Amino acid sequence: MSENTLSGNANIESIIALLHGPDQPGLVARVANWIWERGGNILHADQHRDGEAIVFFQRVEWIPGSASLEEESAAFEAFAQEIGMHVKTSTPNAKPKVGLFASKYGHCFHDIVLRWRSGEYPCDIACVISNHRDLEDDARHYGIPYHYFPMTKENKASVEKEEIECLRSYGVKLGILARYMQILSADFLKGFGYPVINVHHSFLPAFAGARPYQQAYERGVKLIGATAHYVTPILDQGPIINQAVAAVHHRHTIRDLMRKGQDLEKMVLAQAVRWHLENRILTYANKTVVFD
Amino acid sequence: MSENTLSGNANIESIIALLHGPDQPGLVARVANWIWERGGNILHADQHRDGEAIVFFQRVEWIPGSASLEEESAAFEAFAQEIGMHVKTSTPNAKPKVGLFASKYGHCFHDIVLRWRSGEYPCDIACVISNHRDLEDDARHYGIPYHYFPMTKENKASVEKEEIECLRSYGVKLGILARYMQILSADFLKGFGYPVINVHHSFLPAFAGARPYQQAYERGVKLIGATAHYVTPILDQGPIINQAVAAVHHRHTIRDLMRKGQDLEKMVLAQAVRWHLENRILTYANKTVVFD
Amino acid sequence: MSENTLSGNANIESIIALLHGPDQPGLVARVANWIWERGGNILHADQHRDGEAIVFFQRVEWIPGSASLEEESAAFEAFAQEIGMHVKTSTPNAKPKVGLFASKYGHCFHDIVLRWRSGEYPCDIACVISNHRDLEDDARHYGIPYHYFPMTKENKASVEKEEIECLRSYGVKLGILARYMQILSADFLKGFGYPVINVHHSFLPAFAGARPYQQAYERGVKLIGATAHYVTPILDQGPIINQAVAAVHHRHTIRDLMRKGQDLEKMVLAQAVRWHLENRILTYANKTVVFD
Amino acid sequence: MSENTLSGNANIESIIALLHGPDQPGLVARVANWIWERGGNILHADQHRDGEAIVFFQRVEWIPGSASLEEESAAFEAFAQEIGMHVKTSTPNAKPKVGLFASKYGHCFHDIVLRWRSGEYPCDIACVISNHRDLEDDARHYGIPYHYFPMTKENKASVEKEEIECLRSYGVKLGILARYMQILSADFLKGFGYPVINVHHSFLPAFAGARPYQQAYERGVKLIGATAHYVTPILDQGPIINQAVAAVHHRHTIRDLMRKGQDLEKMVLAQAVRWHLENRILTYANKTVVFD
Repeated sequence: MSENTLSGNANIESIIALLHGPDQPGLVARVANWIWERGGNILHADQHRDGEAIVFFQRVEWIPGSASLEEESAAFEAFAQEIGMHVKTSTPNAKPKVGLFASKYGHCFHDIVLRWRSGEYPCDIACVISNHRDLEDDARHYGIPYHYFPMTKENKASVEKEEIECLRSYGVKLGILARYMQILSADFLKGFGYPVINVHHSFLPAFAGARPYQQAYERGVKLIGATAHYVTPILDQGPIINQAVAAVHHRHTIRDLMRKGQDLEKMVLAQAVRWHLENRILTYANKTVVFD
Repeated sequence: MSENTLSGNANIESIIALLHGPDQPGLVARVANWIWERGGNILHADQHRDGEAIVFFQRVEWIPGSASLEEESAAFEAFAQEIGMHVKTSTPNAKPKVGLFASKYGHCFHDIVLRWRSGEYPCDIACVISNHRDLEDDARHYGIPYHYFPMTKENKASVEKEEIECLRSYGVKLGILARYMQILSADFLKGFGYPVINVHHSFLPAFAGARPYQQAYERGVKLIGATAHYVTPILDQGPIINQAVAAVHHRHTIRDLMRKGQDLEKMVLAQAVRWHLENRILTYANKTVVFD
Repeated sequence: MSENTLSGNANIESIIALLHGPDQPGLVARVANWIWERGGNILHADQHRDGEAIVFFQRVEWIPGSASLEEESAAFEAFAQEIGMHVKTSTPNAKPKVGLFASKYGHCFHDIVLRWRSGEYPCDIACVISNHRDLEDDARHYGIPYHYFPMTKENKASVEKEEIECLRSYGVKLGILARYMQILSADFLKGFGYPVINVHHSFLPAFAGARPYQQAYERGVKLIGATAHYVTPILDQGPIINQAVAAVHHRHTIRDLMRKGQDLEKMVLAQAVRWHLENRILTYANKTVVFD
Repeated sequence: MSENTLSGNANIESIIALLHGPDQPGLVARVANWIWERGGNILHADQHRDGEAIVFFQRVEWIPGSASLEEESAAFEAFAQEIGMHVKTSTPNAKPKVGLFASKYGHCFHDIVLRWRSGEYPCDIACVISNHRDLEDDARHYGIPYHYFPMTKENKASVEKEEIECLRSYGVKLGILARYMQILSADFLKGFGYPVINVHHSFLPAFAGARPYQQAYERGVKLIGATAHYVTPILDQGPIINQAVAAVHHRHTIRDLMRKGQDLEKMVLAQAVRWHLENRILTYANKTVVFD
C-alpha cells in the first residue's frame, strides 16, 4: 500500500446499487440471485427494513461477470424496477464533478479540497462558487476554477441562474456548501436538480437559523454541535446526514465556541461528503439511511 | 487506599466557599489574604471572570487555622459580604439530606442510590418520594424510607404540600428527580425552597417537553442526548448543569433510543449530582458555572 | 409499546445464524435462496468479507416458513456445513443461562443484574459465583442463588472444579466476570467449555495486568479506558469485544481514575454482554466481528 | 467581533506566569498580593497542588499597573524565585517563532499552517524543515521558507547540526513535528534547547514505535488513537499533552485506520500546540499539568 494514497479500491471494477421500495419476502434472495446467475460476485451487501413504514433498503456492491459495467448497471436497474424498487447505480471509479460553495471562512473549504487532493474522495472538484473573493488565491493555488458571484437581495434570482449555468457547464452533480453564507432558493435547488450538502453550525434542530453560537452561548448549553444535511427549500430542515458535538464550559467565550465549532464543522461535513461520494446514503421520509 | 471506598477527602476538615459578585481589582488577593492571615491553608482555588457581565466567580477550599469550621465559615461569610460578594460556605464532611423522586423507571434511581451506598456521594439519601409503588421494595432493601404519593390533576396542589411537609421532616436540602414523571409546580418549588436537579431525556433545547425520543426519531437526528438541569417554574428551561450524547443510526428503533438514552440519563444525572454535592456549581443568569 | 420493557422482539419466532468460512462466489445468494425457497423471510442479513484472509462472515436472521424453529435450525446448520461454513444458530427467545462472577466491587454486578431485571437482556442469570460474601445480601434481594467459593493459591484447582460443577448444575452457557478478581485457569476454561466475558480496567493492550489505574496515573495519560474481551488462557490477551475511554487530567487522583473508570467498566461490559446475548459476535484469529 | 479573526485577547497587555515548586502555606496569597500591591489586576489564576509529591503549580495572568510588561515580568520572576518557585513569564502578544517539521504526509502540516494563518495561533511559523520536497510548493504558497534536508543514516549527525543552525537563524523557540518521519537524536534536542511537540499515531503507551496502525489492526482493538507529547531522547516516552481516540470495527482496513487516524492526529496536535502557545502547560515528573 502506498503511503501517499488513501484512495481505496480504486482499481476494482465494481457496481454499487442503492435500492428502496415496499418490503416483500424474498428481496434479498432475488437480488443476490440475479447477480450470481449472471456470474457476478457480491463484495458487500447491507440491507435495512423499516419495520414501521414496511420499506426495504439495500446497498449492494458487486463485481459483474462478463458484461461491461454500463451494460450490467442498466440491466440491474431494469430488474430492480421490475421488482418494485427505486434504484440508483454507480461505480466507485466514476468520479462525479463537484461544485464547492464558499464565502469568507476557509476552514471547510480547505479541509474538503485537501482531502480530495490527497486522494481521499472519489470525485473531481470542478469549480468553486463564492460571493466573496477571499479564497480566490487559494483556489488558484489548488488549480480549481473560481467563480465570483457577488450577491445582493436584488440580484439574487438572476445570479442564481448564472450559477446554475456555471455548474452545468462543468457537469456538476453535487453541491457542497462549505460554510457558504447564502441561502439557496427553492428555484435554485429545482433548477440545479442535484443534491446539495450543507453544514450548519449547531446541533439541529437546536439553534436553527442565524447565529447559532450566540444562541448556544446565551442558553448556556454544555455541548455545541454541527450538522451536515441535504439542502431542501425549508431552511435547516433537510435530511440529517451526520452530527457531532464538543464539550464547552463557562470559560468559553462565543469566540471559543466558534473556534471549537469550526473543528466540528470540518469533521461533520467531511464525513457526510465521503458517505455521499461512496454512494452510502439513501433518503426517505426526510431522513437518511447511511450504509456505513 | 481502601478498595471499597470512593469517598474522597473524608477526613480533611476544610471549608468550601462559593462566591460571586461584581468584579473589582484585588478580589483574588483579598480572599487569599483573609485566609492566610488567619492561619488557613488554601487547598484549591478556582476563579472565573465573565468578561461580558463583569462578574467575578470563585470557589475556594481551605483548611482553617485554629478556629472551628463553624466559626470560620461564619467569619468568612461576613467578610465576603463586606467586599460585595454573594457567598455560600459548606464543608465536605457535612452530608446534606437528599430527597429522591422517582416514578416507574428504576435506572436513575438505582444508579444514584448505588453510588451513594458505595461512598461516592457526600450526602444522606433521606427518603424516596414516588407517585407509584414500583420501586418500593427496592427502596426497602436499600433501607431508605419510601413515601407513596399518588397524584392526580385534582389532588396535585394538596399532595405537593404533603410532599413538602415530608421533605421538611427529614431536613432535605436537595431534591433529585430520577426520571420522576410529574412536573413540579411553581408553588412546590417556592414552598420547598431548595435546589432540585432534573434529568431530561433529550439534548435541550432540542426536543423539550413530552416524548423526546419520539421527536428525535421522527426528525432523524444522528445523536440523542440527555440534560441535567436545575428545575425552575418554566418547564425544561432551567440552568443546564451537564449534557451528553450518543450516536444513533437508521437501524435504531424508538425502543433502542430509549435504551441508549437511559444510559445517558444515568451518567448525566450522576455527574450533575456529584458536582452539586461537592459544592462546585454556581448559577447566574440562568446558566451554571461548574468548577470541576 | 410498554414503558416498562426494553425487551425487544420478544414475540417474533425467528432464527439467527452466525456463519464463517472460506469466501467463495455466490454465498450470499445461496444462503438467501435456501431461506426463501423454504418459505422463510429474512429480517436482517449482514455480511463481511475479510479481504486479506479471504474469509466470509455472515449474520442472518429470518422467520422460517412452516417448519418448527428446531427443525429449521437443524436443517440450516446441515446446509451451511455443506457449503463449507462454520455455523451456530440460536433464537432470540432462547434465554441462555448465565453465571455471574463477582468479588467485592459491586458496580458491574448491579449494572448487569438491573439491566437483566428490566428486560434488557435475553438471558437468565442463573447464579452468582464469588470469592467473597460482600454481594450475597444483594443477590438474595434480586432472587439469584449466590455461591461463595473462598479461594487460595492452595485450593484453587479443586475449587475451580467445584465451580464448574456448580455452573453445570444450572446449565450455564455464558460466564460474565463482573470485576471478578481471580484469574481463571486454562483448566477452568477448558472444563467449563463455554465463552467467558471479562472487563479489564484499562484500554488494552496498554496497562495489561495488575493495577492499571496506578499504571495510567504514573504514565500521565490523558484518557483512561476499559476493555471487554473473551477470556483465553493468556491473561488480558483474548479477542476484544468493546472498548471505551474517558478524559482525565492532572487534577485527577488515582481514586478519581478508579471512579471514572468504574463507569467505563459498566458501560463497556454491558454492551459486550448485550452483543453476545443477541448473537452478534463471531471470533476469528483472536479478533471479533461484531454485527451491530 | 470580527468574523475573520479567532485571535483572542490580542490587544490586552497582560503577563502570564507559570510557577511550580515545593508547596507551602500562603503561596496563593503571596502571589496575589504581589500583583495587587503593584496595581495589577488578575484576569485568571489557576493552581494545582499535587497531594502526593507536595508540589504547587500555578498559572496566573494579570494586567500590570504602571510598569512595562518587561519590567514587571522581570520583577515577578525575581519575586517568584525568592519564594522558591521555578517560574516562566510570557505575554500573549509575544509571538514565538516556530519551526515546523514535516515529511511527506501533509495533513498535520496544512492543519497547523491554516490555523496559524486564520489567526488561531499566537506565533510566527518561521520555517519548514523537511527531509522531502513534497510540501515545498505548498509552503511557498503560504509564504513560509522551506528548508530541504535530505537525511541518511550516515549524514544524520551533521544534518541535524545544520538544522539547528537553521532554526537558530530564525530565532525558533518551538519545534512542531507534523508527522515528521525522522527520530530526533538526543544531541539534536540538547543542541536545539527548546521544546519540541510530536504527534504519535497511536494511543500511547499502546503501540509505541513503528507502524502503530498495523499493530492496532492485528490486535483487533475497537478504538484507535493519537497522542501529542513533548519529545525526549527516549522514543515515544515524553510527557503526554493530549490524546484522542476514534471507534473502529471489523470492516475497517488498515487504510481506513490510517484515514481515521489522520483526523485524530490533526486534532490532537492542533490542541497541544494551542495549549503550548497560550502558555498553559507545565511539565513535571514526565507528566504535564495543562491549565485549560
